[in-house]
Amino acid sequence: MLLGTVEGNIWSTKKSPGLLGKSFLTVRVGEQLLICADCVGAGEGERVLVATGGAARVAAGKDAPVDAAVVGIVDQT
Amino acid sequence: MLLGTVEGNIWSTKKSPGLLGKSFLTVRVGEQLLICADCVGAGEGERVLVATGGAARVAAGKDAPVDAAVVGIVDQT
Amino acid sequence: MLLGTVEGNIWSTKKSPGLLGKSFLTVRVGEQLLICADCVGAGEGERVLVATGGAARVAAGKDAPVDAAVVGIVDQT
Amino acid sequence: MLLGTVEGNIWSTKKSPGLLGKSFLTVRVGEQLLICADCVGAGEGERVLVATGGAARVAAGKDAPVDAAVVGIVDQT
Amino acid sequence: MLLGTVEGNIWSTKKSPGLLGKSFLTVRVGEQLLICADCVGAGEGERVLVATGGAARVAAGKDAPVDAAVVGIVDQT
Repeated sequence: MLLGTVEGNIWSTKKSPGLLGKSFLTVRVGEQLLICADCVGAGEGERVLVATGGAARVAAGKDAPVDAAVVGIVDQT
Repeated sequence: MLLGTVEGNIWSTKKSPGLLGKSFLTVRVGEQLLICADCVGAGEGERVLVATGGAARVAAGKDAPVDAAVVGIVDQT
Repeated sequence: MLLGTVEGNIWSTKKSPGLLGKSFLTVRVGEQLLICADCVGAGEGERVLVATGGAARVAAGKDAPVDAAVVGIVDQT
Repeated sequence: MLLGTVEGNIWSTKKSPGLLGKSFLTVRVGEQLLICADCVGAGEGERVLVATGGAARVAAGKDAPVDAAVVGIVDQT
Repeated sequence: MLLGTVEGNIWSTKKSPGLLGKSFLTVRVGEQLLICADCVGAGEGERVLVATGGAARVAAGKDAPVDAAVVGIVDQT
């Protein structure tokens, strides 16, 4: 998985049916910005684990056309 | 998913049978140009969500040899 | 998919059984050279659509160990 | 697979159900930091083999939303 | 697939069960070093075709947690 930081939300009204009811976060991973399905209720500024590719659909559901999902919030230490 | 901007269309007459009847958009994602199956009716200049890999086939159909698909148009805010 | 230009052919006599009978093209995609199964009969110098990952096996056959395939020839305009 | 070096551990209390009971390592692969499910009991400083994508789930279990897993410790020679 | 050059072997005694009995090659692909399951008996210095992702498991077996495999030796011309 990748380590990222949640920057905010993004909305899309016109989208594939498989994305209905999901919420999306913009997550910065190094220099890249990924749009991730939120599977854990993460909020802005939190450090998160991002699963990519098929792993994202294990978390978000196999019928969702997503390739990135927030699957964990990193514990602060 | 990736955030991109639709730049235009691309046509291919000689192609794999699984691509028949699909329309393709050229989408700029950072410095990269991706050819995406259009699953939402996006147009030039619109900011879109691009699903890659197997996620593209969840949206475009599992028998289509596509690895990138436009799955959402980002709401303007 | 990616936009590339066919540079030539490549041959491999000693290979995995699943590659038997397939022809392979060297395709330039930006700065990268990809070896692609040819699914449309593309020739040197043509601009082509390259499908990667599982999408390549949708076009080339699921028992072929290929991760890149030429799935379309871009129309000249 | 990729060659990496284990840098440490990472903990996430709030996570997808499929990640419960797994331990995660931070692994440096070149300039990139990957969070990997630990499938072999690797420790800090060890050189390891990292499997990515679906290969990670072959090792870690298909219901785990992981896209990277430590699948081997490289023998010292 | 990617074009690479075999640099040598790598051994791992402590590894995932699915890797037992497989031999691994270090293969240079441009600036990157990939650890590949050897499916064709390639040797040091040979130019090879590397299949990545799920394609590697088509060649190496679906129960092997590998994401890269040498699937062909390029003919010298």
